[in-house]
Amino acid sequence: MGDGGGEGNRVLSPSSNNMRAFEQVRESMHSAISMNKTEVLDTVLSDFSEGYFSLSPENRRKLLLILAKEYDLNRVQVRQLINQYLSLELPKDTVEEEGLLSTFYRIERNLRHSLQPLYEVLFERLNTHPGGLKFLSILRADILCILAEDNIASLRALDSYLKEKLSTWLSPATLELHQITWDDSASLLEKIVAYEAVHPISNLIDLKRRLGVGRRCFGYIHPAIPGEPLIFIEVALLKNVAQTIQEVLWDNPPTPEHEATCALFYSISSTQPGLAGINLGKFLIKRVVTLLKKDMPQISTFATLSPIPGFMQWLLSKLASQSKLAELEASSHPSADRSTSSFWENILKQEEESALLSLSEEFAAMNNGMEVMLHILTSKNHDWKNSPELLAVLKPPLMRLCARYLLQEKKRGKALDSVANFHLQNGAMVQRINWMADRSEKGLQQSGGIMVNYVYRLGNIEEYAQSYFSTGHIHASPDLLHQLEVVIFFLKEITRST
Amino acid sequence: MGDGGGEGNRVLSPSSNNMRAFEQVRESMHSAISMNKTEVLDTVLSDFSEGYFSLSPENRRKLLLILAKEYDLNRVQVRQLINQYLSLELPKDTVEEEGLLSTFYRIERNLRHSLQPLYEVLFERLNTHPGGLKFLSILRADILCILAEDNIASLRALDSYLKEKLSTWLSPATLELHQITWDDSASLLEKIVAYEAVHPISNLIDLKRRLGVGRRCFGYIHPAIPGEPLIFIEVALLKNVAQTIQEVLWDNPPTPEHEATCALFYSISSTQPGLAGINLGKFLIKRVVTLLKKDMPQISTFATLSPIPGFMQWLLSKLASQSKLAELEASSHPSADRSTSSFWENILKQEEESALLSLSEEFAAMNNGMEVMLHILTSKNHDWKNSPELLAVLKPPLMRLCARYLLQEKKRGKALDSVANFHLQNGAMVQRINWMADRSEKGLQQSGGIMVNYVYRLGNIEEYAQSYFSTGHIHASPDLLHQLEVVIFFLKEITRST
Repeated sequence: MGDGGGEGNRVLSPSSNNMRAFEQVRESMHSAISMNKTEVLDTVLSDFSEGYFSLSPENRRKLLLILAKEYDLNRVQVRQLINQYLSLELPKDTVEEEGLLSTFYRIERNLRHSLQPLYEVLFERLNTHPGGLKFLSILRADILCILAEDNIASLRALDSYLKEKLSTWLSPATLELHQITWDDSASLLEKIVAYEAVHPISNLIDLKRRLGVGRRCFGYIHPAIPGEPLIFIEVALLKNVAQTIQEVLWDNPPTPEHEATCALFYSISSTQPGLAGINLGKFLIKRVVTLLKKDMPQISTFATLSPIPGFMQWLLSKLASQSKLAELEASSHPSADRSTSSFWENILKQEEESALLSLSEEFAAMNNGMEVMLHILTSKNHDWKNSPELLAVLKPPLMRLCARYLLQEKKRGKALDSVANFHLQNGAMVQRINWMADRSEKGLQQSGGIMVNYVYRLGNIEEYAQSYFSTGHIHASPDLLHQLEVVIFFLKEITRST
Repeated sequence: MGDGGGEGNRVLSPSSNNMRAFEQVRESMHSAISMNKTEVLDTVLSDFSEGYFSLSPENRRKLLLILAKEYDLNRVQVRQLINQYLSLELPKDTVEEEGLLSTFYRIERNLRHSLQPLYEVLFERLNTHPGGLKFLSILRADILCILAEDNIASLRALDSYLKEKLSTWLSPATLELHQITWDDSASLLEKIVAYEAVHPISNLIDLKRRLGVGRRCFGYIHPAIPGEPLIFIEVALLKNVAQTIQEVLWDNPPTPEHEATCALFYSISSTQPGLAGINLGKFLIKRVVTLLKKDMPQISTFATLSPIPGFMQWLLSKLASQSKLAELEASSHPSADRSTSSFWENILKQEEESALLSLSEEFAAMNNGMEVMLHILTSKNHDWKNSPELLAVLKPPLMRLCARYLLQEKKRGKALDSVANFHLQNGAMVQRINWMADRSEKGLQQSGGIMVNYVYRLGNIEEYAQSYFSTGHIHASPDLLHQLEVVIFFLKEITRST
């Protein structure tokens, strides 16, 4: 209706049409906030959300800023209530007169309410309106886009308010576990294709395989957003814990289901950008494990094949800073023992460094092994992946440093890697890291192609979650610990030899 | 575990066991509030809710008071933040520095959070915990029981806080419409029997009839409280709009479904006393009508057979006050024209009054017809219902006054009767009132046995809801309006003749 989007309207007066459409949506937003409660409100809310969708990005931005600024707190009222509140005596520990206490609680409640922005009404009303929760999630996605470019304080405040609201409405207790199959509606499956973020689905055949024999896909569906999982997890039923994503995605034929003893979670994706920062995955893995165990008692291993999204970023910045420090150190105290500096740490073993420096004459001229490694890893198109020679030299340090990254690098006492933190707080342990497990552009970019298997041991899930929570302790397999012990041993040796 | 409930424990030291159990639950409540977020929290929350169930009513009361008083606001912090807030300048309309605004929003958010009682954490955590929402509803039922006897200010404040939370969590958009049938689990059907509040279910045969041929039953189920409708509605498929509840409950055999043209809603009950005051019925009737219309296109009438819960209470108090006024009036101005008093209103017609006074010598000695009517209606066991003579005399004024009560008696512009208000705000009209439609003790007590048919006209639902909302206008059938017009006409005639 004259939103300026149709060619026909554009011919006449695009900007005035545009303006009128904007004013209409703005008016319905105002009604949606200021009307008294009634059945009629539903029409207004529908008008508002439909109108919003018809707006251009610029007009959406304009409208959201109006919402954030003009439907904020009533600050005059807040000050009045604060003055009322301050004039009251704090109730003492002794038994007070009930009437006095009532006044006290009443003013506190009024003050609390007055500190709720006016847009709270819109959010609450949309939440009870069919389709409203989905609409709010789209609204928030738009808000996050605007904030990414322009950190506007009032809009930031609105976003943090909306996020709190969404968190309380999207209780995991209300989420329904739904097995997604080829029999689901095309509109649902389309969302799986669109939102698979870990290992993109290339075509219909790929999708059908992921829902077919030897595969499972489960999603959490919220009753107010039907037909659209908020988060989904993909599972492969295998004989052994897979080491590479290629063998999971492209095994042909798949393992017959009665021969499978391992359920491998190879992908978790969320579908709503507007729900960023809200933990929807809680219970998901535990519930899927319970369900699979019941349906297929022969499955004894529940593992993941997971990306390590933060490894390369951590490693490259470490290599850059440490090689710079090494260079400075070398130039200022050419003969000094490098290991005495408190800032500087050679993250490579001696033999690894030699191997890197002797790869070519170009590399031999560089200051140290870390500079060589940084150079190779940041080369265009990840060319190193095609050179057997480079791969052979890179593998030992990359695998060792990856184990260190996963098991020892922490942020506020928790694993630095976000996916590691997710599985560890769910009660998993780190089982194994796999070389060249994801050769896709994204896999090489994120983690140099390395992937990790986390394992959920049915009997230990609670215990591991608890110890990770309370002490930050990360359970790891003996093999993996061994890879680390070598480093520790090696560092000790260096220290001793100096 | 030593809650003093088992005979075995009682022998040793009941009160110390009791005390220990109480302290354990108190401790788990404290952990549930003060622990940091983690998977482990689930164990604590389960411990707390299980522990709570094991407590005696006195200990529950004690615990709830501790929760209300000791986990209230941190008032020292509130004062600190208020002082910080007051020291800030109100941002002006002009563009301010973003940094300044951010501080402003941040302190407002902190102040808002500090005004949330500490028990907010417990409520939020229980909401996300499986079974937690149901537990909160039980907790609130206990709170309402305590408050009914003892209006404790802190507990009243906790209740109003919890009610707000429950309202936002129980969004109608998340409620699922479920058709309840004889194939549902016994545990679900048991709840239907227990909570049918309008026309109690006497036995299994009665229940089976209500779910069998010519009957439908629909419930709203919340995903976090599975297997237990929060509210349910019973429907009979009939040839005509029924006039009495007996023909609905005990028609035998029921109308063959293909002959039915009317869907009669004869009962709506809610199952959770802890959700009192929270509107769960929104959309329920509209959704059931839509569903029935789709399944059975031959159904053309959607009506209710509803109780009039407030009629007798209104009528008896009206009769008592008006007859008292009439008496005073008569004694002070024996010859004065009664209709000139501005307070006094003879709610009976002249012929009705004569008929009442001439029923017996005892009645003839009374001051006026209203006193006679009051006397008859308040007689023990509703003896009047068995006397054809009394019934004949009572019917005209009772029916007329009932129409007046439904269509003209208002409270804040809305129908005084709660059931009338419910259906009118849903978009119904008042179709017909039925004499001796519910002869049960409860029916006679509430409405002198009269019941009412509300009708939902598919094409008018939105329009009627809207006009009722905006002007308080009540749509009624011509027949019913005619019953009222007679009164208005009659009053005019009296006025004219004086």
